[in-house]
Amino acid sequence: MDDPVLLTGAGGRVGQAILHGIGEAHEWRLLDREPLSSDRLPPGVADDDVVVADVTDADAMVDAMDGVGAVIHLAGDPRPEAPWNSVLENNIDGTQTVFAAAVEAGVEKVAFASSNHAVSAYETDERTPEMYRSDDDFRLDGSELPRPGNLYGVSKAAGETLGRYYHDAEGLSVVCVRIGNLTGGHPPRNYERGQAMWLSHRDCAHLFDRCIRAEYDYEIVYGISDNERKYYSIERAKEVLGYDPKDDSAEYTLDGEPKDGA
Amino acid sequence: MDDPVLLTGAGGRVGQAILHGIGEAHEWRLLDREPLSSDRLPPGVADDDVVVADVTDADAMVDAMDGVGAVIHLAGDPRPEAPWNSVLENNIDGTQTVFAAAVEAGVEKVAFASSNHAVSAYETDERTPEMYRSDDDFRLDGSELPRPGNLYGVSKAAGETLGRYYHDAEGLSVVCVRIGNLTGGHPPRNYERGQAMWLSHRDCAHLFDRCIRAEYDYEIVYGISDNERKYYSIERAKEVLGYDPKDDSAEYTLDGEPKDGA
Repeated sequence: MDDPVLLTGAGGRVGQAILHGIGEAHEWRLLDREPLSSDRLPPGVADDDVVVADVTDADAMVDAMDGVGAVIHLAGDPRPEAPWNSVLENNIDGTQTVFAAAVEAGVEKVAFASSNHAVSAYETDERTPEMYRSDDDFRLDGSELPRPGNLYGVSKAAGETLGRYYHDAEGLSVVCVRIGNLTGGHPPRNYERGQAMWLSHRDCAHLFDRCIRAEYDYEIVYGISDNERKYYSIERAKEVLGYDPKDDSAEYTLDGEPKDGA
Repeated sequence: MDDPVLLTGAGGRVGQAILHGIGEAHEWRLLDREPLSSDRLPPGVADDDVVVADVTDADAMVDAMDGVGAVIHLAGDPRPEAPWNSVLENNIDGTQTVFAAAVEAGVEKVAFASSNHAVSAYETDERTPEMYRSDDDFRLDGSELPRPGNLYGVSKAAGETLGRYYHDAEGLSVVCVRIGNLTGGHPPRNYERGQAMWLSHRDCAHLFDRCIRAEYDYEIVYGISDNERKYYSIERAKEVLGYDPKDDSAEYTLDGEPKDGA
């Protein structure tokens, strides 16, 4: 079996979606700053594989990465409305700590959970709501400069730039995934924007599985399902990571019901 | 006369180059975290116009911006090799504090001193030293993603993204100047890279004068003289700011002597 994968923020929404989908496909080391209840652990994860630590704790992070081949770094303040001091510490300083620890521990690759909020100010009054619809051709592809809609988004853009630095300076493989709107079962209800950037649970798990398995240098990709209406390109994720999403918000009505009545 | 201009980091190298060039062209409020000796003050600046404060002190920054029309924000740890904790606090947190204070105080525009280090990892082994020479056509123009060569450069890129956010969210006019290699008198000696990104003292002062006077939304420009050999475009600075540089490192020999013997 390959080296274990360290998952930071394992108890959070994205972490749980990943573990539900690919929890049995890898050997895991799970990290969260709160203890993880047993219902949040995939089968086969022993107590020794669970670490309670803060990602700003450099020594703890190096220890947690001992023998690890890849890191999926999700931990941080996930609130779009989070105040500056929290994202400065938890998201910016925390992510720097994770990248630096990965280099020190000899980890090969890090997948960093960035966010649609790093670019949400491209959604100007002039472009919306048209850009949320399938007949609009506005697309972001990851080569554009960040344009955050909030300080949380600023912190995610800073994490991307840290990843660029640690790739260029230290040779770390880094992929930044600008995660869309993650929901289980069906797309967000009555929310065109969220439907255009829907990421289903199974596509999320598959995408991070590709981040663990694929070979890459430094990448910024969008993490959304293959929605018919979208303004984020998934071409780079397909090309570099082999991402092959199965879901599409257009298979559901605006209020989230499957169109085939299933 | 127009509203006063707040200059943070007034005692530093860039601040002094600005004040020597345009010290009598504006009404100034000068801020530094160390007291400024009288030889560092332009004529006509009274003691009341000098503020000793740290840019991470939000209340002090709002006070310092009372009645100010424009801010030139230079303060921060200027060392390319500065450790993470210092750039996190002084450069990233400090710049956020400055932008937030500018919004609170009703300031119209902020010119932010970014750096060539925000993009210095574009200078790969494959491209150098050819890209430092006039027969190479590699150009950066400010639309490219950051690619820092050090954590100082990461902090400057984060400052640029903060500026983007405060422009989009709050309507602040923001120009980020990726400053090249500032020297007085002559270009850096026997240093092709520094000559390609030379910024003379008089061009520096003129450029920031244009940042005070011009109208703009959000811009990233390169701050270098009109060097014959360059890999940073100055077209955007000319177009948006009316930048009209007078110096060119090609008028000097490689070891910094004027070619006309003057």
